[in-house]
Amino acid sequence: MDEDLLMLPGPTNVPDEIRVEETRKMINHRGELFHNLYKEVQTGLKYLFQTNNPVYILTTSGTGAVECAASNLVKKNDKVVVPVNGEFGIRLADIFEVYGARVIRVPFEWGEGVNPDTIKETLENNPDTAMLAFVYNETSTGVRNNARELTEIGKKLGTLVLCDAISNLGGDELYTDKWGIDIVVSGSQKCIACPPGLAFITLNENAWRKIEDSKPHINYYWNLEKIKKFHEKNETPFTPAVSLFFALNKALKLISDEGIEKRVLRHKTCSKALRNGASSIGFRLYPKKEEYASYTVNAFNLPSNITDTDVKKHLLEKYGISIAGGIGPTKGQIIRIGTIGDINQKQVEKTLTALEDCLVTKGLNVKKNTAVNAALKVFKENKY
Amino acid sequence: MDEDLLMLPGPTNVPDEIRVEETRKMINHRGELFHNLYKEVQTGLKYLFQTNNPVYILTTSGTGAVECAASNLVKKNDKVVVPVNGEFGIRLADIFEVYGARVIRVPFEWGEGVNPDTIKETLENNPDTAMLAFVYNETSTGVRNNARELTEIGKKLGTLVLCDAISNLGGDELYTDKWGIDIVVSGSQKCIACPPGLAFITLNENAWRKIEDSKPHINYYWNLEKIKKFHEKNETPFTPAVSLFFALNKALKLISDEGIEKRVLRHKTCSKALRNGASSIGFRLYPKKEEYASYTVNAFNLPSNITDTDVKKHLLEKYGISIAGGIGPTKGQIIRIGTIGDINQKQVEKTLTALEDCLVTKGLNVKKNTAVNAALKVFKENKY
Repeated sequence: MDEDLLMLPGPTNVPDEIRVEETRKMINHRGELFHNLYKEVQTGLKYLFQTNNPVYILTTSGTGAVECAASNLVKKNDKVVVPVNGEFGIRLADIFEVYGARVIRVPFEWGEGVNPDTIKETLENNPDTAMLAFVYNETSTGVRNNARELTEIGKKLGTLVLCDAISNLGGDELYTDKWGIDIVVSGSQKCIACPPGLAFITLNENAWRKIEDSKPHINYYWNLEKIKKFHEKNETPFTPAVSLFFALNKALKLISDEGIEKRVLRHKTCSKALRNGASSIGFRLYPKKEEYASYTVNAFNLPSNITDTDVKKHLLEKYGISIAGGIGPTKGQIIRIGTIGDINQKQVEKTLTALEDCLVTKGLNVKKNTAVNAALKVFKENKY
Repeated sequence: MDEDLLMLPGPTNVPDEIRVEETRKMINHRGELFHNLYKEVQTGLKYLFQTNNPVYILTTSGTGAVECAASNLVKKNDKVVVPVNGEFGIRLADIFEVYGARVIRVPFEWGEGVNPDTIKETLENNPDTAMLAFVYNETSTGVRNNARELTEIGKKLGTLVLCDAISNLGGDELYTDKWGIDIVVSGSQKCIACPPGLAFITLNENAWRKIEDSKPHINYYWNLEKIKKFHEKNETPFTPAVSLFFALNKALKLISDEGIEKRVLRHKTCSKALRNGASSIGFRLYPKKEEYASYTVNAFNLPSNITDTDVKKHLLEKYGISIAGGIGPTKGQIIRIGTIGDINQKQVEKTLTALEDCLVTKGLNVKKNTAVNAALKVFKENKY
């Protein structure tokens, strides 16, 4: 059966009403129609990021937005502290190193959350740290790090704070201005429920001072000063992915119609229901503790004698559901299921039914509807 | 009147049958459906680039593909020769400088073509040159440089040759393998008639040897070795703009259905007809000689007492036609009209009628249908 339902950590299902926007006639990216579109998109992004600062839009993947940050914000030998508890923490550290930063990687066991006390200690021992850069939602392990507390620590100890919110912005709490995060990066294809191809970066005054201080920059396409100058004219320096802007505008309108708080609750509830359902039939949560389980990427260990390929294949071939396996050291060890963007109760139930059927097919003794019933309990208690 | 017909140097009108592809359901970029899509797109791109080497696809604008080349191919103090006869020549030189190259800019008057003899002399005087990098079609001036001769000179004198074919690939002759160009970059939103957001780079064995020699590279998103590794699996390292891949696949099928030679002839004819028509009513060609007038971007000086704003406004407000003004030193001095991608006789005639009407409205004495009749002569002589 062909893919019908994406339960991936991204890209996610894109609602029809968003996809259809992409068929609009092409417009001049230096003309009035585009300027108006740009302004509308800005309004939507500021609400989504909970910031009064501009949110710059890059035609790239989320990783491109991280590289944009690194190439503008660090100068050679700047000390950058990066907590590492998964593949995207490693990537963050790698990107800063490419641009000459002295990166202090603070390792945590995979499946563990980042311990804020350890980060505090690291920053105290390195008072010359220029930046604390962390992944909010570790897509590779399904661990949600404590972005609020990490930001508080960074601010208190006088470093810039960068938050990579690629896989949870729009599905999780993030208050850029209120929390005081200096730089936030994210992408279009996760909880915004937009097609992939656009990425975002927002910065406050502190970040801009650092950019000024870090010149000259090793970049051209990522140059934030040029991007800022074009932003003043409601344009981008280089031809943007116009049709994705149409889609993004609609996606952002749907977000503001739903309301951030309600949207976060929907993600949180669907994730909790999925976790309850899956663990009731033997898929043990990969994160060591429920308290730092992600709302958007749900990682599970496999029941004995079941491989990730068994599960992925069964779900795709019999149900048209796409889920992901592990990456890096968890490759072949875990499955990852997204509760992202357009996620709803029906999708969660369908996925759990398919997981249960997979186990039954493999000869495991599972009582019918165990998983769905466990999920329903959550949905009953947490109306969204 | 709203924009109805884009006669810009890009983005260009995207045919309905290409745009509608973008509404397809999102798919897993690590799954079989995407792998098949990727393979089909490769076949189409190899035909378009006339190469047997892979054509790598980046989610970015054309400028991103140039930066990809520079960040992978040069090491500090490499000598790179760049002919400069317009804004995009300057940009090419700037990007190589960002990555530490010693760039020798060989300047030519704006509106002039690059003189191959001057480039030959420069290369002979700099036998340690690592690369000759040139813009094939200078979008800012409507000048078409002699890519074939420049490549021959570069090859004969033993440098790598990079051709920026962003604004004419798909509408002009380009035989990557036959001519022996080492690196070609281009974008989706010009003569391919696809929405903006994807860019391309193809490289031969010589280029790969240079990449190996230029390590370590200052990049992450642009890393060609990683991109090549994922290419072997029919994937991209980072989430690509999947919906634009759908559109690109259709656009490439339309190109192979039409045939490259016929498509080039169509561009060439429409451009010549537009130039004939416009010059018959007083829009003098900006390039100093017809022999190096671009097939895809047509730049004109303005009749006296007429401003670029007059023309742009009249065409947009009364006819819904978008054209561009000058950029850099020609800002306010010229207009630029694209004959790109989906271009046909009807669009050329409509644009000429609008130009003529603009002059009449401004009180100039122009005999009715002068411009269209001048164009029709070309269409009669050059059937495509």
